[in-house]
Amino acid sequence: MAYIELPDGLPGIRALLAYRPDTARPLNDLVDVLLRGPHTLTPAERELIAASVSARNDCTYCQSIHGAIAARQLGDADDLVAQITSDPERAPISPKLKALLHIAGKTAESGRCVTAEDVARAREHGATDLEIHDTVLIAAFFCLCNRYVDGLATWTPSDPDFYRQRAKTIVDNGYTLTAIPAR
Amino acid sequence: MAYIELPDGLPGIRALLAYRPDTARPLNDLVDVLLRGPHTLTPAERELIAASVSARNDCTYCQSIHGAIAARQLGDADDLVAQITSDPERAPISPKLKALLHIAGKTAESGRCVTAEDVARAREHGATDLEIHDTVLIAAFFCLCNRYVDGLATWTPSDPDFYRQRAKTIVDNGYTLTAIPAR
Repeated sequence: MAYIELPDGLPGIRALLAYRPDTARPLNDLVDVLLRGPHTLTPAERELIAASVSARNDCTYCQSIHGAIAARQLGDADDLVAQITSDPERAPISPKLKALLHIAGKTAESGRCVTAEDVARAREHGATDLEIHDTVLIAAFFCLCNRYVDGLATWTPSDPDFYRQRAKTIVDNGYTLTAIPAR
Repeated sequence: MAYIELPDGLPGIRALLAYRPDTARPLNDLVDVLLRGPHTLTPAERELIAASVSARNDCTYCQSIHGAIAARQLGDADDLVAQITSDPERAPISPKLKALLHIAGKTAESGRCVTAEDVARAREHGATDLEIHDTVLIAAFFCLCNRYVDGLATWTPSDPDFYRQRAKTIVDNGYTLTAIPAR
């Protein structure tokens, strides 16, 4: 049971967004720019950063939903996503994405852990300033979301099918239409 | 030197906000609601949550500016703010604020660290659901800001007077007018 009285039947951050529309609006605007906006990183690459940071922070809800979204975007690739979030260096992904996931993991530990060498590695593999910036900001944003969701003990469904269904809706319609309260 | 090419002469998060206006807008909207919006917690109480979490995360820029803002709001109370951020349980503040700062510290560690007992303590001292919600969200938001600022190695001025001057501007004019790029 959540630590505060939240609207019934909504899991994870969705209950919190419904509870406080004034903070929900900027949170939804931010996730929309970071994960769905036009970008040189694919939506799946950005969702993998979100899922990896959430796994590191042990946030079941965020890890499950963003992992499910990435899997859906990659063609129901559940096993690949599990491999990437658990052992990115050995996963069949680009050297650039490996370097960005490394920066994201360091960011989740502490901003002070990210080194010039970490950034140089990403740049050697073709990462741009904007891609490095957004990797750090996506990682930092999910450090917010994970703490928000778990710090108030929101409802976390345990059935993987729940997240697969929800991922389909988000991939088809975007975050804004499915999660944001009406303005 | 920052890890990416940022506008000259802007410290901490301000350089990042100027670099990426699309993410700056929701970040500014969120900080404005959380720290400056109408609330049953005073602006100084909310700034103290921000400064305490930033101190815990060892983010010099965020800790310095939000500590300076709280000190200004409390009547140039630099010593009191230093006491609150280093040892809140022994500081001359209300039992409710102590309990909320305790929740904020747990949130910064991990959302999973916040217990029902932590929340019950705050409630016993008069905290409302909204105050508990916003304490967790402010703490989580500064876990974002601290990682964003330090993860990209932004410029951190060392002169305390820099932060005092800036704090005066923010207290007099608000965040939005002083930090947000024009829409």
